Amino acid sequence: MKALLHPTKTYCINGRVWLETDEGRFLGIGRLELLEHIAELGSISKAAQAMGMSYKRAWDLVSSMNAQAAAPLVSTQTGGTKGGGAVVTETGQAAVMAFKGLQSRFQEFMALEIQRLHA
Amino acid sequence: MKALLHPTKTYCINGRVWLETDEGRFLGIGRLELLEHIAELGSISKAAQAMGMSYKRAWDLVSSMNAQAAAPLVSTQTGGTKGGGAVVTETGQAAVMAFKGLQSRFQEFMALEIQRLHA
Repeated sequence: MKALLHPTKTYCINGRVWLETDEGRFLGIGRLELLEHIAELGSISKAAQAMGMSYKRAWDLVSSMNAQAAAPLVSTQTGGTKGGGAVVTETGQAAVMAFKGLQSRFQEFMALEIQRLHA
Repeated sequence: MKALLHPTKTYCINGRVWLETDEGRFLGIGRLELLEHIAELGSISKAAQAMGMSYKRAWDLVSSMNAQAAAPLVSTQTGGTKGGGAVVTETGQAAVMAFKGLQSRFQEFMALEIQRLHA
């Protein structure tokens, strides 16, 4: 492969991995970031705002994840004095950990492949 | 991770990998398919047609690949009795082989990860 590479250019390998079901995307890097923001901020609207995403989009992503998992990843409280918040459930925390593991092994895969490219 | 999965749904891992430089994308699955079609059909316009892609788009992808590699991946002959054809060069063939290898190892990676998901 080395003969393919221009000596003055820098090459890298990039990529994306995601989990899906028959219903479409289930978990990917964007949804992971949304879960992490919800966990940090305790609110879907604040998480959406922090990510520059519309509330509707964030809500649709949460609905999609909740509908495709064994149990909801995010639980919401409507009303109350604080006007409703959102919590990442234990199942949601397990999803975050699992996807982070996959993402980190994928980074390792790409790092090995870039070495192979230059070998 | 198993606790996350709904017992009646089928989960799979999907993804994409590609090579890039500072100038943007260099090689990915779409460009690989374009190279394979050019090799088979001997023409950028026929390859574009076979892929349902505009000639301009195919030409731009070929230009982008050629500009980012050590040597052109596709060489074109203008004019002549056959009105100009295109050939995937030796460097281009090396690129196809290398990217297919990467793609196949990536498939293995995803297959292992789906096993891990159900473990």
